Amino acid sequence: MKIDILSLFPEMFTGVFESSILKKAHDAGAFDYNYVNFRDYTDNKHNKVDDYPYGGGAGMVLKPQPIFDAVEAIEKDANKKPRVVLMCPQGERYSQKKAEELAQEEHLIFICGHYEGYDERIRTELVTDEISIGDYVLTGGELGTMVVIDSIVRLLPGVLGNDDSAVQDSFSTGLLEHPHYTRPADFRGLKVPDVLLSGNHAHIEEWRRKEALKRTFLRRKDLLNDLELTEKEQNWIKEWENS
Amino acid sequence: MKIDILSLFPEMFTGVFESSILKKAHDAGAFDYNYVNFRDYTDNKHNKVDDYPYGGGAGMVLKPQPIFDAVEAIEKDANKKPRVVLMCPQGERYSQKKAEELAQEEHLIFICGHYEGYDERIRTELVTDEISIGDYVLTGGELGTMVVIDSIVRLLPGVLGNDDSAVQDSFSTGLLEHPHYTRPADFRGLKVPDVLLSGNHAHIEEWRRKEALKRTFLRRKDLLNDLELTEKEQNWIKEWENS
Repeated sequence: MKIDILSLFPEMFTGVFESSILKKAHDAGAFDYNYVNFRDYTDNKHNKVDDYPYGGGAGMVLKPQPIFDAVEAIEKDANKKPRVVLMCPQGERYSQKKAEELAQEEHLIFICGHYEGYDERIRTELVTDEISIGDYVLTGGELGTMVVIDSIVRLLPGVLGNDDSAVQDSFSTGLLEHPHYTRPADFRGLKVPDVLLSGNHAHIEEWRRKEALKRTFLRRKDLLNDLELTEKEQNWIKEWENS
Repeated sequence: MKIDILSLFPEMFTGVFESSILKKAHDAGAFDYNYVNFRDYTDNKHNKVDDYPYGGGAGMVLKPQPIFDAVEAIEKDANKKPRVVLMCPQGERYSQKKAEELAQEEHLIFICGHYEGYDERIRTELVTDEISIGDYVLTGGELGTMVVIDSIVRLLPGVLGNDDSAVQDSFSTGLLEHPHYTRPADFRGLKVPDVLLSGNHAHIEEWRRKEALKRTFLRRKDLLNDLELTEKEQNWIKEWENS
């Protein structure tokens, strides 16, 4: 996978891309990335990338020209038209399903604004996907882009070992994860539940399923709507609703 | 504000913390941060931070001891008990409201796991807040921590200039933002809407409100539930529902 990142602050990405799994994935050739500072594409002598909004109001707006020219320079050398992702609070809420979809692409371009609006023509003419990573305000699109890239790269073939993939699988149940415990069995008087030490795998599986359901019921009831539950599981939920 | 970050990969944070607004905020004394590699707190000779899960299964689990000892070493030197935030997919979904709440604190500790589970006793005994930045899987808690810190620090007094604050204000309407346009008025035949060039401020305000409502209606209907709308606005929505 090839990734181009349009940002005025490419140095923000270095720590994340040069550590741990992203570094290993890049070194192994699973993905390649390239920074494009779109200030280099301005056609005005002061290299201005933004300007005042038409109609008045506070805040600046990113001009269309530098971003159009930067994206088109990338597309000119591409075999196939890449997906162009704009990070913005107005975008589709990012999800694991979207990560799986983007992980199928050969080439992605990310556009990161920095505490400024985007000229609407960038959105309507250039961009294929608008993404928001959540309902909170950040200083720019760079962190959102890192989040999206991290979630995609870990899905690429060969990036995670078997042990790590298992963690991913645990999300595919549609429930929040059950509690985990490791040694010691008694830590300052805080004990691991007996069932986990019992060696009875059927009991352990049932305990884990029940705890995962309970945590999801208590914290994220909305996730239960999409699940098919057994009669026993429905009865557990009725009990929790009554208590 | 003082922030301590427990992570096995402190180098991941450098690019984000040493650029743009976070760097300026740090240099101006608005917040201070400190990395704690909790591997330094292990009491076993191989400096192991994780171990196999009780009850079997794939994946490793972070041991309680190094994280308990690291947090307690920080708390020993603190005037007041800090909030201890755990980044995990099982946490409360992060929101702007939570950012505003955390921005009031004097001292925060963030615990970042890295593609591993946490021993449940960390969650129940040590942690005051479990946060998830969204419904997607990342390789670790580091990016989530950067997202939360970025969203908090921009709210601290003096960090954003007036122009930037305005961008924040535009979210406080509860709607997605209206479209923005800047020069040129005609970019490759793509024109700025006439109303924005009209100089009629009442018309501009109405156009912006209507476009913000429409975008929210089309993309994030859920946000409309919390709003009080005028009769005129309710009629716009009825029109869109019928078309």
